Amino acid sequence: MNVNPIQLFDAESSTYTYILAAPGSNEAAIIDPVDHHWERDLAHIERLGLKLAYILETHAHADHVTSAGKLRALTGAMAAVPSGCGISPAELQLRHGDVIRFGAGEEIAVLHTPGHTGGSMSYVWRDNVFTGDTLLINGCGRTDFQSGSAAALYDSVMNKLFRLPDDTRMWPGHDYKGQSVSTIGWEKRHNARLANRSLEQFVELMANLDLPRPKLIDVAVPANRNLGLPHGA
Amino acid sequence: MNVNPIQLFDAESSTYTYILAAPGSNEAAIIDPVDHHWERDLAHIERLGLKLAYILETHAHADHVTSAGKLRALTGAMAAVPSGCGISPAELQLRHGDVIRFGAGEEIAVLHTPGHTGGSMSYVWRDNVFTGDTLLINGCGRTDFQSGSAAALYDSVMNKLFRLPDDTRMWPGHDYKGQSVSTIGWEKRHNARLANRSLEQFVELMANLDLPRPKLIDVAVPANRNLGLPHGA
Repeated sequence: MNVNPIQLFDAESSTYTYILAAPGSNEAAIIDPVDHHWERDLAHIERLGLKLAYILETHAHADHVTSAGKLRALTGAMAAVPSGCGISPAELQLRHGDVIRFGAGEEIAVLHTPGHTGGSMSYVWRDNVFTGDTLLINGCGRTDFQSGSAAALYDSVMNKLFRLPDDTRMWPGHDYKGQSVSTIGWEKRHNARLANRSLEQFVELMANLDLPRPKLIDVAVPANRNLGLPHGA
Repeated sequence: MNVNPIQLFDAESSTYTYILAAPGSNEAAIIDPVDHHWERDLAHIERLGLKLAYILETHAHADHVTSAGKLRALTGAMAAVPSGCGISPAELQLRHGDVIRFGAGEEIAVLHTPGHTGGSMSYVWRDNVFTGDTLLINGCGRTDFQSGSAAALYDSVMNKLFRLPDDTRMWPGHDYKGQSVSTIGWEKRHNARLANRSLEQFVELMANLDLPRPKLIDVAVPANRNLGLPHGA
């Protein structure tokens, strides 16, 4: 049974934020909220009659700052983050295999999917997977900074994400073409970077992308390791 | 039980397109598709393993051109449009009270909600309502062209949309602030233009908005009355 999340967009960094709400309870979780949208995001929580239980991060982002610390202070929700990302103020330091429970029997399963960063996690909820910057629609995250590794990303995708059922809906951390959602089955067959490519071919492809350094990285990563709060706060 | 639609965005005209897909069948419907996104939208249908059964329009848009004719030709889906909008090539000319059936028992109920245009319709599917440009999140559509009428819009909202259950999720035809979804209950209590306002106050407010004429209106309306196809095609 597909229960889609609410998908919210930050046009500045092309980041997707997700609100997970399920039948039978008003408890909700939010994944990867963006700093300057905290009011918009709380307005969604309020309009939908929800109570925020968890704020999840897929990794310590380099292109935008999280609102996790702010939302935590305002709602009392708990911050749940990958244990390998150095986000020390978060209550819950997640490890592969953990399960987060909320609402009336809702479960979020935690998958460690390193590659974009060493600590990156993906989250599985019902028939949906939230892949952060590990797997994107018809693409994948870059692997050239923050303990990134093309070989690790290849392994995460092939041996974790692509082993989910084919009809699992895949919700990315970013999209630059107005695309909202894909499925694991489609990405397995068609993903331009990963489908029908060997580990060696993928590593070579990623080594030659020659991407510019993210403008915000020196500000965003330290800020995100503090849940987006000013240091000392 | 809330089964959210897939929500797609056109950044140029801030238009939302919706894909409605339901458990138990691969049949889907699409509401208000935008011309230059036809490939993106078909890619979503394909990636999700869906088959398009219906293409719905909420009205003859003045700010963008529909891809309904193109999608119809490529998928064999039927075009279903408000009977009062002059969109003559569509198979189904909808009237208030009609029900569109697809998938495994899915129903879309048709509400005539004039005001933004004389023919505008809203569509109710499960616990969701798609309000086109009649009701927007914390706002409403303009009423100063195409048989628009502030008094008619007020009546549509108060006597049709606001009589839906409070927890009905409300998905607008546009949003200019990155907002995705609201609920009927919230809009009843807080909508900046409509909540706690009399008919007279609302009509006066709308008469004084002094909005510029939509740039595309002379192209878009005739095009949309032909499902976005070139005339003569």
